[in-house]
Amino acid sequence: MTLTVLFAASDANWAEYAAPLRAALDEAGLSARLTRDADPAEVDFIVYTPSSPAQDFAPFTRCKAVLSLWAGVERIVGNPTLTQPLCRMVDPGLTEGMVEWVVGHALRHHLGMDRHIVNPGRVWDPVCPPLARERPIAMLGMGELGTACARALSALNFPVTGWSRSPKTVDGIPCLHGSAGLDQALSQAQIVVTLLPKTPETENTLNVRTLALLPDGAVILNPGRGALIDDEALLAALDAGKVGHATLDVFRMEPLPQDHPFWAHPRVTVTPHIAADTRAYSASRVIAGNIRRAVAGEALLHLVDRGRGY
Amino acid sequence: MTLTVLFAASDANWAEYAAPLRAALDEAGLSARLTRDADPAEVDFIVYTPSSPAQDFAPFTRCKAVLSLWAGVERIVGNPTLTQPLCRMVDPGLTEGMVEWVVGHALRHHLGMDRHIVNPGRVWDPVCPPLARERPIAMLGMGELGTACARALSALNFPVTGWSRSPKTVDGIPCLHGSAGLDQALSQAQIVVTLLPKTPETENTLNVRTLALLPDGAVILNPGRGALIDDEALLAALDAGKVGHATLDVFRMEPLPQDHPFWAHPRVTVTPHIAADTRAYSASRVIAGNIRRAVAGEALLHLVDRGRGY
Repeated sequence: MTLTVLFAASDANWAEYAAPLRAALDEAGLSARLTRDADPAEVDFIVYTPSSPAQDFAPFTRCKAVLSLWAGVERIVGNPTLTQPLCRMVDPGLTEGMVEWVVGHALRHHLGMDRHIVNPGRVWDPVCPPLARERPIAMLGMGELGTACARALSALNFPVTGWSRSPKTVDGIPCLHGSAGLDQALSQAQIVVTLLPKTPETENTLNVRTLALLPDGAVILNPGRGALIDDEALLAALDAGKVGHATLDVFRMEPLPQDHPFWAHPRVTVTPHIAADTRAYSASRVIAGNIRRAVAGEALLHLVDRGRGY
Repeated sequence: MTLTVLFAASDANWAEYAAPLRAALDEAGLSARLTRDADPAEVDFIVYTPSSPAQDFAPFTRCKAVLSLWAGVERIVGNPTLTQPLCRMVDPGLTEGMVEWVVGHALRHHLGMDRHIVNPGRVWDPVCPPLARERPIAMLGMGELGTACARALSALNFPVTGWSRSPKTVDGIPCLHGSAGLDQALSQAQIVVTLLPKTPETENTLNVRTLALLPDGAVILNPGRGALIDDEALLAALDAGKVGHATLDVFRMEPLPQDHPFWAHPRVTVTPHIAADTRAYSASRVIAGNIRRAVAGEALLHLVDRGRGY
């Protein structure tokens, strides 16, 4: 039987994914028709991004799973027409890119690179930075991405404390949870990384109250979601010297509007949502692997818990 | 018997080391008098940096070892009066600092951070960098420091090729050697790290001929010794676009003179010899441990081979 796989994403996604996804389906031993246009009643699987016009999932009566190309599913998980199983993307390429961005910017701030990169006064000030083992980091969010970043930072000797809403156990990384745990993690962190999923509970995790808990001069790295931080509270904390620098990759509105104060602030670095991207080659293999599992009656990987929202 | 340990280094070194070195000697169970002034004939061990006035080692007839506080020993190894065993500093704190500098600047260039750190035009250009696994690195020098850096970069998925003058085997890191090996390593490297000891053979390892072997736009990181690079050849290669950027921590003259062209070059970053520093606490334990070994008749660690010069 030939499966019908509907590719419900943008033209740009199609240009990038058509070939590697067909190759991955073949490689998984699946007979599948990958198409952008099919009778909904005949669709077996949907490969999805929110840039697709598909918003009503009710007509897809035969569909066995919706497979997101994105790690974040907040723009689909609350869709009331979605009754089919939904899987997040957990792409090894995405994880690697995220680890590189987080470790790179953590080391940039740890080493104080900016004053060497821009040094018009030719200042020669041979003061060694402390060692990473003297620089505590709080990792807010200990999912796939947060855990991978925590491990990589820990391998470089940074003392990393993980935090998540519900209790987690991660080998070698002390983990806190809940509201009291968040306060404790922030009060000791010289660098804070926000890698929480975006849910109603995580919005504004960094706000006036929680930013005030940080040691003076702490650095914020946000490669997660713009809404995790209260922008006004962050700007006030930067101006007060409570936060030493913020390097932000994600924003409530993207591209970041030209008149947003983050652009002008001397202690904010904007990176243009590049911390992590799904890579067509590796993501296609993840999608094809999950389709193969569904066809074989095995459990889907990276299934979204609708109650939690991720 | 109380040992006499002569501290032959600068006033600044003394201020930093007197307390941790005494503590480390105690901790090693040694009865020792640590002093800056002793009858040479009564000195058992010399703790040394080249900033010391001590240049004639002949009068130290009882001295069992000269223990350098520096990893690089080129300013003492050729001293004809030095007949005592000479040990280099291999400080875990120094190695950690070096790994942090090398990994940090490798990721900085890999991610293209500079265009986000300085972005007056507020350019939002969401192009993801390649993954580290697509960015080959050549590590020139596979001693303690080079090997530690190679392992840390490799753990982040960078394909690292090691190179040293004589053959080396390092688990998980392909290693080349000799002149042909150098040419091969450079011809494939998008980032080159120079961590060779300074010897007559390693001077100007990067020169007009070898720089020309690099792929266009390659990045040079030099946290080793200034003399490993021919400055004029590097400037020419930068101007020609052959070398995309050079981040340099060490120079033939330090502080780097204010009129040196490296300061003004838009694609050179100067860091003020901070990549790695001996840390008093951990280095003191290394020194005390070696004295304990000598007293117990055990082999000294990190003994310098006078023939090789390191």
